[in-house]
Amino acid sequence: MRTVTAYQAPAPNTPLHPTRITRRDVRPDDVAIRVTHCGVCHSDLHALNDLAGVFPLVPGHEFVGDVIAVGSQVRDFTVGDAVAVGNIVDSCGECDMCRAEQENYCREFPTLTYGGRDRHDGTPTHGAYAGEYVVRDRFAYHRPAHLDPAGVAPLLCAGITVWEPLRRWNVGAGTRVGVVGLGGLGHLAVKLAVALGAQVSVFTTSAAKADDATRLGAHCTVLSTDPAAMAAAQGSCDLVLDCVPAPHDLAPYLQVLALDGTLCSLGHLGPVTVETTALLIGRKSLASAGSGGHRYTQDLLDFAGRHGITADVEVVPSAQVNTALQRLAAGDVRYRFTLDLSDVHPS
Amino acid sequence: MRTVTAYQAPAPNTPLHPTRITRRDVRPDDVAIRVTHCGVCHSDLHALNDLAGVFPLVPGHEFVGDVIAVGSQVRDFTVGDAVAVGNIVDSCGECDMCRAEQENYCREFPTLTYGGRDRHDGTPTHGAYAGEYVVRDRFAYHRPAHLDPAGVAPLLCAGITVWEPLRRWNVGAGTRVGVVGLGGLGHLAVKLAVALGAQVSVFTTSAAKADDATRLGAHCTVLSTDPAAMAAAQGSCDLVLDCVPAPHDLAPYLQVLALDGTLCSLGHLGPVTVETTALLIGRKSLASAGSGGHRYTQDLLDFAGRHGITADVEVVPSAQVNTALQRLAAGDVRYRFTLDLSDVHPS
Repeated sequence: MRTVTAYQAPAPNTPLHPTRITRRDVRPDDVAIRVTHCGVCHSDLHALNDLAGVFPLVPGHEFVGDVIAVGSQVRDFTVGDAVAVGNIVDSCGECDMCRAEQENYCREFPTLTYGGRDRHDGTPTHGAYAGEYVVRDRFAYHRPAHLDPAGVAPLLCAGITVWEPLRRWNVGAGTRVGVVGLGGLGHLAVKLAVALGAQVSVFTTSAAKADDATRLGAHCTVLSTDPAAMAAAQGSCDLVLDCVPAPHDLAPYLQVLALDGTLCSLGHLGPVTVETTALLIGRKSLASAGSGGHRYTQDLLDFAGRHGITADVEVVPSAQVNTALQRLAAGDVRYRFTLDLSDVHPS
Repeated sequence: MRTVTAYQAPAPNTPLHPTRITRRDVRPDDVAIRVTHCGVCHSDLHALNDLAGVFPLVPGHEFVGDVIAVGSQVRDFTVGDAVAVGNIVDSCGECDMCRAEQENYCREFPTLTYGGRDRHDGTPTHGAYAGEYVVRDRFAYHRPAHLDPAGVAPLLCAGITVWEPLRRWNVGAGTRVGVVGLGGLGHLAVKLAVALGAQVSVFTTSAAKADDATRLGAHCTVLSTDPAAMAAAQGSCDLVLDCVPAPHDLAPYLQVLALDGTLCSLGHLGPVTVETTALLIGRKSLASAGSGGHRYTQDLLDFAGRHGITADVEVVPSAQVNTALQRLAAGDVRYRFTLDLSDVHPS
């Protein structure tokens, strides 16, 4: 075992502070990673405030780094490889979802990168706000080394969360994609959909984001608080990715769907109510999706490498993690914080 | 104009009685049809009981017959042709839905076969519980003349309502289709899905219907009131067609979907509430659809002709229409009543 520096919360609603945690010795199918950058995800906030959570807690589930050791049976990675890891580090491997390489939907629930329990020894998993991480090789991915690692880290959660629906609904040249909410997920949805050749409309409550939407490649911005603009957008999208992480009325976004269109909610909205008539007229679908599995994650990293796509990030030294979390809670980031964890090495 | 015999309700919740109504002279793009059989649809019951409806009312929107006259510009039909008509007799022709030949979703709302208003002269449309009907040629379809016309009539509403989702979700060899509710729609969904090569499971609250499901071609029947049977069916369907026309919990049918599966509700359920998590796990979709447009209706009739598919009907003389409606309201039919309207000729 190795001890490494990590940022840990001792209890719900307490600040993170640097501490020392242990990482396991590599098993035959493990890779050990020196973490260089970890994105700060909205779900980290939820976990840190979760009164029912398992504490002490080390967040962090979208990270990049370099391989520093491999287990005896690892064939796909070697020391020095540039890698990335997302929010899943193991799964049952046997169920229909795992067999489809969608371990994010594992029937036994996947092992989460933090706040989960290791499937072999039952110990809690601690996240990548830390100097190192040890992960089963299947859940590490090769990352394009020519891309800024700080901007790659958020691809592993925010990015894959929007990439999977873009792929599943066959977005390509000419597909009309709507993106609701221009935040961590939304700004990556715009970049990726544009790179796939789609016509992209951004729906936002903030007129101030129109310039940013254009800069990111969007072809059109619709102010969702403007009834006339929303009426004009009726029937204009084949796929809408709704990235808003708080309960809201879905009816206006069903209206902007074209025939056979799909509204995919990515925001963990809890129970939602829709009129079946709003689905019926135009044979529309309401869907949801979340995070990513093996099937599409390497695919995303390869695509990002070919198209030079990274998240727009504000890189902060790891010691400023609490400030970053406070600013994220206030919505004060465009569009993702990435912690620079190289400052904790040698750990 | 011609006067013809029709079964008409003078006011909501009153019996139908035979009367004489007028049919317009054929316009250049009209065909006049001698009606031989008309299916009795659940929505006829709704219309007859609708306190806000337009009365007097002649129901009937899934019918077959023979062409007895054509307008001067009609090219696709000639006198003597075996034809069929569904629940739409006109539409705007200009909107995105109409251009996609999905006139059932016309942005201006399609002209319904009865209870609507003619787009040219504003007169109310009267349905096909009648000796003749006059319809714009675009909304008449050639029917396979070798099939029993009484069994073809219900294809034009019950049939197309299940056929469109089967086509839109690309059901074919090996697709796993669930059919919830074995009634007028459901029994046709089973026959059509089986003929497309699908593996079909019927979900029913009635164990007594298992034999019928098998006879119709279903590979498996699941008693939806049996929690163990429902648990065993988890993840077993790519597409579920929910044909139940009354509000019910959709969650059990989201559970039986496999990865990327779709639950399509065909029953006009009004507002429905679902947990987004139930959609998220497995990236599932909730959809709805209703009736049919040009795009798939002739396609259905041609397919039915090739595969010898008709509805299972109980044919009743037109004079027994009120008894048929009462029995339908009580669920006492397997699986569709068809009125024999040949008994009102010469009209």
